[in-house]
Amino acid sequence: MSNMKQIFTNTLLEMLKSKELNEITVTDIAQKCGVSRQAFYYYFDDIYDMVEWFFMEETDKALMAYTDIDTWQMGYIHLMEWAKKNQNIIMNTYQSVQREYVEVFMNRVLYQYIIQVVEHESKGLTVTDEQCAYIANFYTLAINAITLEWIRKNMHEPPVEVAEKVNFMIEGDFKKALLKFQQINLSIF
Amino acid sequence: MSNMKQIFTNTLLEMLKSKELNEITVTDIAQKCGVSRQAFYYYFDDIYDMVEWFFMEETDKALMAYTDIDTWQMGYIHLMEWAKKNQNIIMNTYQSVQREYVEVFMNRVLYQYIIQVVEHESKGLTVTDEQCAYIANFYTLAINAITLEWIRKNMHEPPVEVAEKVNFMIEGDFKKALLKFQQINLSIF
Repeated sequence: MSNMKQIFTNTLLEMLKSKELNEITVTDIAQKCGVSRQAFYYYFDDIYDMVEWFFMEETDKALMAYTDIDTWQMGYIHLMEWAKKNQNIIMNTYQSVQREYVEVFMNRVLYQYIIQVVEHESKGLTVTDEQCAYIANFYTLAINAITLEWIRKNMHEPPVEVAEKVNFMIEGDFKKALLKFQQINLSIF
Repeated sequence: MSNMKQIFTNTLLEMLKSKELNEITVTDIAQKCGVSRQAFYYYFDDIYDMVEWFFMEETDKALMAYTDIDTWQMGYIHLMEWAKKNQNIIMNTYQSVQREYVEVFMNRVLYQYIIQVVEHESKGLTVTDEQCAYIANFYTLAINAITLEWIRKNMHEPPVEVAEKVNFMIEGDFKKALLKFQQINLSIF
């Protein structure tokens, strides 16, 4: 069953090379796959349901593939390279009301890389898991704000350069935040 | 003419207290104002054109109102308080494909507060206007990523607390970035 979902989704990705997402109909996809519209509706409610499935599948793959990394930059560059490879569906989804799918994907994947580094840097410090999670979430959102601007500008800038610039701005900041959490006990956290 | 635009927009804001944006029609608004649909179309192409006008007007007002501030936090809290006051239209627009209007508004207003502080802190340092602008843009996007998360969570958290947390994370970072720009000459910038 999941295989059929994959076939429909691959067909959509193929069609996105020459058409916009909002121009593609269920009939188009069913025809290309040589099945009826009913067959399509057996698997998905509509095209956006399929797009959501695609992003969820890709999130799972990216999270499973993530192994120990030394720097979050490596993971970040990988994430942007994946986005460039899937530029058609990313851009089309991002410009639709389903934009959230792109953001949730980006945030979940980048968070995994960052929390790993934050936890590594927290060794020997008396900080809680919640504080580590707060730091990782803050920097995930901040960095992905830059990623989304890069997407809006059609992903022209090389991923390595984007990562280099972000690193220039935030280098040492995870540790700084961890040390602050250790020193100060802010009631708001 | 602009007065008539204001009347239509105020009517929309009033209606948003009891209805969702996508449930409101041009006919509804024209009727409430006691004019014809044609009169509405003389001023706006459709309801989203009116929403865009609202955000542009509010941006202009916010930028004109901004006077010298000592800390960006003051401006940031003010921005969030404005958002809470206009929660209906913010939430409705944010959940639509016109979400960009909310983001552009937030970014333009916050940038004004931050660039002011960055430029103040750059006094005596040999950094370029472009470097100051880069720092201000980076932190505007980063902070507004947190603001947008706050909006998505229905603006429950008090603005002062949000600002306090953000400050906890980035305190001293504008200066740190300025000093880095002065020391290192990165070819990518």
